[in-house]
This record gives sequence, structure tokens and C-alpha cells, in this order.
Amino acid sequence: MTYRVRADAASIEARAQAIAVEQSVEMPLAAIDDPSVLEDIVGQVEAIHDLGANTFAVRIGLAVATVGTDAGQLLNMLFGNTSLHEDVVLVDVDIPAPLRLAFGGPRHGIAGLRHRLALHGRAFTGSALKPQGLPVDRLGRLAEQFARGGLDIIKDDHGLADQHYSPFADRIRACAAGVARAARATGHPTRYVPSLTGNLDQLRTHAALAREEGLDCVMVAPMIAGFPAVQALVRGFPDIAFIAHPSLGGLRICPDLLIGKLFRLIGADAVIFPSHGGRFGYSQATCRSLASRAREVGDGLRPALPVPAGGMTVARTSEILDFYGPDTMLLIGGNLLLAQDRITDEAAAFARAVADHRFTRG
Amino acid sequence: MTYRVRADAASIEARAQAIAVEQSVEMPLAAIDDPSVLEDIVGQVEAIHDLGANTFAVRIGLAVATVGTDAGQLLNMLFGNTSLHEDVVLVDVDIPAPLRLAFGGPRHGIAGLRHRLALHGRAFTGSALKPQGLPVDRLGRLAEQFARGGLDIIKDDHGLADQHYSPFADRIRACAAGVARAARATGHPTRYVPSLTGNLDQLRTHAALAREEGLDCVMVAPMIAGFPAVQALVRGFPDIAFIAHPSLGGLRICPDLLIGKLFRLIGADAVIFPSHGGRFGYSQATCRSLASRAREVGDGLRPALPVPAGGMTVARTSEILDFYGPDTMLLIGGNLLLAQDRITDEAAAFARAVADHRFTRG
Repeated sequence: MTYRVRADAASIEARAQAIAVEQSVEMPLAAIDDPSVLEDIVGQVEAIHDLGANTFAVRIGLAVATVGTDAGQLLNMLFGNTSLHEDVVLVDVDIPAPLRLAFGGPRHGIAGLRHRLALHGRAFTGSALKPQGLPVDRLGRLAEQFARGGLDIIKDDHGLADQHYSPFADRIRACAAGVARAARATGHPTRYVPSLTGNLDQLRTHAALAREEGLDCVMVAPMIAGFPAVQALVRGFPDIAFIAHPSLGGLRICPDLLIGKLFRLIGADAVIFPSHGGRFGYSQATCRSLASRAREVGDGLRPALPVPAGGMTVARTSEILDFYGPDTMLLIGGNLLLAQDRITDEAAAFARAVADHRFTRG
Repeated sequence: MTYRVRADAASIEARAQAIAVEQSVEMPLAAIDDPSVLEDIVGQVEAIHDLGANTFAVRIGLAVATVGTDAGQLLNMLFGNTSLHEDVVLVDVDIPAPLRLAFGGPRHGIAGLRHRLALHGRAFTGSALKPQGLPVDRLGRLAEQFARGGLDIIKDDHGLADQHYSPFADRIRACAAGVARAARATGHPTRYVPSLTGNLDQLRTHAALAREEGLDCVMVAPMIAGFPAVQALVRGFPDIAFIAHPSLGGLRICPDLLIGKLFRLIGADAVIFPSHGGRFGYSQATCRSLASRAREVGDGLRPALPVPAGGMTVARTSEILDFYGPDTMLLIGGNLLLAQDRITDEAAAFARAVADHRFTRG
């Protein structure tokens, strides 16, 4: 894997070696007398590149045997203790094919999502049910309004959990019903996507409830639920498509790696991220890299759908589509909600803008 | 809660308001027509203090109703999307008493750990089983060597998971047996503390295996396992004492808050952290605050035991004890392992140094 390290030229070699030890045996090498540990387990500094301005790219090789197939242990070995050092950013990681296939990546990916939504040749549209605090019937009505505008995905705000003002079971029943009514009216198979929260037992209960309501897409935040929980959930519900939410993703792990690559690795079919030009600070280059990593092909895993979000507007549809291309879901929440009484019209305008878009590239 | 925000004086009010909205309703306020949401749910900027150098402390009040009693949702509401902003650090949070008692904090805490180890009037001693890659019998022997030196706690390295070279069930059997043999010889009830990993099912299986081996203390990394999983585990195994490992804790959440306060809140009886003066960069002030938050009394939760670690040495015993006081576990791993053939002697010297220490303060 590759780390970006702040250090001066005189100390970088020692710093790189210290990271290799920290992320593998975490003890003085002088105290290791087992030759197979020294040879096979201790991390190896493979390369150091000077990036200028007292910053270095350090490539370190770790033994696959230390990871096993637990997604939590993967994070632990990639960045566990080193995350506690403020001068180190985890930039990239090469996951060997056997490990990659063991994790399995998206079970449905872009093609599966397109199939579900009977959607070809254009980008996906999505919006979010907010604000939290609304009672269940208001959320259900809002979901129906969005869906009547012809959007593809109506997802819960990630703040909606299992609060007393909108308990999970009641909420998904109301929202699923609202979206189903709209879908019958429009003829478009809009999907309602509930946000699953809690521990693995609760996540499973939520996923099973969603399935009972006829839903086949859900959202989960891997950094909140924990990588091991998401991994187990994806394995346990192979018929369901998973959309990953980036909440609590602000580690010193490059966003294109964490969200584009690692969320996909553990099975996200679509990954939500804050796009450039909204209310978050990701650069265009980060967003481009994140989207292209999510959509990667040729590594034995399915491509995942990038979902730029975080302050997007209908007015920017064209620009966003030209930037990300058609294998994208545009997720616009607050900006549609501003239309209040005219939410369905605004959602329809959004859906039309995506449908009518002619790509200037790709 | 309190955030530290980098901004200029002209923009800080708008920035503070944006954080209050992001961490609550996450949408334009103009689009909210429900008065109870505006009144009860939208986050409120309560105070802004200029800390100088374009840095501000921003205090924001959130509705308890948005959190519920899920530890994952707690993190989501405290720092979910805002963690994606590089200019914001989560510094502190006031948890109202009902919520605090719902989470429950340490089930055993310092007093419970002292009782288990029949240990009064001095600090705790601990060491770690490393390097990973060693076979089970070597780890078992090492555990016995440490324990024969009279240490209190022998824990797994946090890199030990369920790898083929030391499967969990075999490892804990060997290490528990080694420590039990030593404890019969020394008369001191040394505890072997296995590191539990994986998803909630696996964590429970591991905890049950540990209990079958007669173990009553375990270690878990909340940022790897996920807060919801740790919360469920603590509830499910009320007889077991939990030691929290800080792996992947390098979010922009102040360490004294994350490790000292939040790990304790969800039930850690002892919290491991990288102490000042070792190989990590936490300052003395951070370490002092972290330890004092872990040991907090008067908030209805039990005090948790601070465990400074990360490159500690036997030579520093006195200094570390004077800094942290007796309600502390000193955790020395690599430095003891350097003694190789003389590990038991070195462990004994460490145990003696802690037992003989006369505190210069407190």
C-alpha cells in the first residue's frame, strides 16, 4: 500500500521503516528470532518517492496472511495504528486477486442497478427524504411526490435511524407504499432505499423488513456500522443491492481509496460521496478518481455506481453529467425540497434534465 | 457538542450555522415547513469563541431525540458528514444523563478490574503477545513467560485476529493455559486478554470461547468493529471486562474525547492509548485529559482504567506512574520482548518497579 508521509529527507527512510513495522509486527525487529516471521510477516518498504515540500510517497508491502478475509482486519492492517499518526495519509492499496475475490465486491453493481430500474443510456436520478423529525406519514407523502416526478431512487436521509418520531418499520412501510403508488401511476420502477442502522442483528432485522416490503435496495454507512457488519450483511442478503453512505469517512484515508475502492471491495453496489462544487471540499481530481475507482473493470469485481451528492442542484445537472458520464446517479436532496408544494414538478424537471442530456464526451 | 473550526472572522457565523444544519436536518431551512422540526430538531449554534489564529470553538446543541440509543447513530449525529470537512475537529460533547445511563459505560471499570486482579494501592502492569506470525505454541510460551514475571494483564497484539498461523480458538487455549500455569506458580491472578475481531457473530463466538476458557477480560477495537457491535457485545457479556484498542482512531475527533469519553460511554472498562513520549504524537496535555476523562466520576458511570502504551519502556516506569497515578495500567510490549531469553526476568523487573513505586503526587 502507499502512504503519503510528511517528513524531512534525512528522516524519511527511518519513518518509512517504522510504518512498515507498525503495520505488521509492531515490535522491535531485534526481538524477533523466528526467521519465518522476519521473512514472511514483517512489512517491507518497497519504494520511497520524494513528492517535494517535505512530503514522500512510501510504498510498503504487507503479508496477505496477516489480513485473512475479515474486512475489519483489512482496515486494521492497512491503517490501524498508523491512523493515529497525523503526518501519514493512506493513499492507495493493491489488493491481490485472491483477497479481492474473497471480499467479492458489488453483488449487483451498475449493471444490476440498471436492470432493476429498467434504465439504459442515461444517468440515474435520486433524492433524499428529509428533514428528520418529520412523522412517518409526511415522509411517505414526500417519497410519493418525488417518485411521481419520475426519479429512480428515493433514499432515506442518513440521519433517519429508528427514532421515536419515525420508527424504522413504520417508516419503510409508508415510504414503500408511497413510492409503489407513484410507480403504478408513472410506470417507472422507482426504488425506495431505506437507511439501515444499528448493530448486525438490527441491520439484519431491518434488511429482512425491507425485503418483506418488496424493497431490493438499501443504504448503509460502513464507517458507522463497521466494515465487518457491512461485509456480513452483503453476504447474508445477496438479492439486495447496497448503497454506501460516507458518514464518518473523514479519516486520513484518501476518499477515492476509502469510498471508491474499499467500500466497493466489501460489496457496495453504489457509493455516495460529496461531489466537488457542493458544500464539501473534495476536488475535481478526487471526485474523478473516486468515480473511476468505483467503476473499475477487469479486476474480477463488478463496477459500482458512483453517486455524487452533497449540495447538488438541478441547474447543475448538465455540468455534473458531463463530468461523471452516464454510469452515475445524481442525488439531489435539499435543492428539490426547496420547491415545497412543487416538489413533484421539480423532481420531474430533474428527471427530464437527466433523460434529455446529450453527453459532450464519453 | 463543541467543534474546532478553521475559518476567518467574517465567515465563522455562517460556517457554524452550516455545521448545525449538516448535523441535524441536512437541508435548507427554507424548505422546512414543520414548526416542530424547526423548533426541536434543527441544531442550534449556542456559542462561538475566537481561539485566535483563524480558529474558533463552536458549540452546537442537537436534539437527543435524533440519537436514540444506538452507539452508531450517536457517532453519526456527532460527526457523520462533518467528519468529511477537513477544517473541522470534533472536540467535545456533553451527553445528557438519560442518554449516558442508556449507554451504560463500563460494566466493571477500575474497581472491577482491581477486584479481579486482587490488586490495591498500585498501578496495573500489562504486556502484549507479538509478533504476529508466531505459531500458537510460541505465543502460549511467551504468555507464560510474561505471567511468571508477575504481570497483571497479558494481551494479544491487536494484529492477532484469526489468521491461519494462529487461529483464535487454538491461540486462546494455549495462552490461557500458559498464563494459568504461571498464575498457579506465582499465586498472582494474572489475566490473559484475547483480542476479539470480526463481525458481531464472530465477536460473540470469540467471547463465548474466551469465557469457556475461564477468561473474564477481552480486548476489542471499537473503530474497527464498529460502535454498534461493541455496544451489543458489552450488553451481551456483562460478566466480561472490555479493554478498548485505539486502532483506526485517527479521525479528526480529539483523542481524549474519542478514547477517554466515548469508548468509556459504550462500555470499555479500560482504554488503551498511545502515551506521550513513545512512538506516537499525543501531547502530555492530551494524555492527561484522556486519562482524566476515562476515570471520570460523578456522571453515573463507572471510571474506566487508562492504559498508556505505544513504545513505553521499563526505564520510564517511575515517570509514567508519577504522570498518570496509580489507577493506571502500564502496558509495555516490545521493550520487554527485547529481553528475549530473559523475558520473565524483565517482566518481573517491570512488575517490581510498579509495585515499589512511591508516588510523588496524588
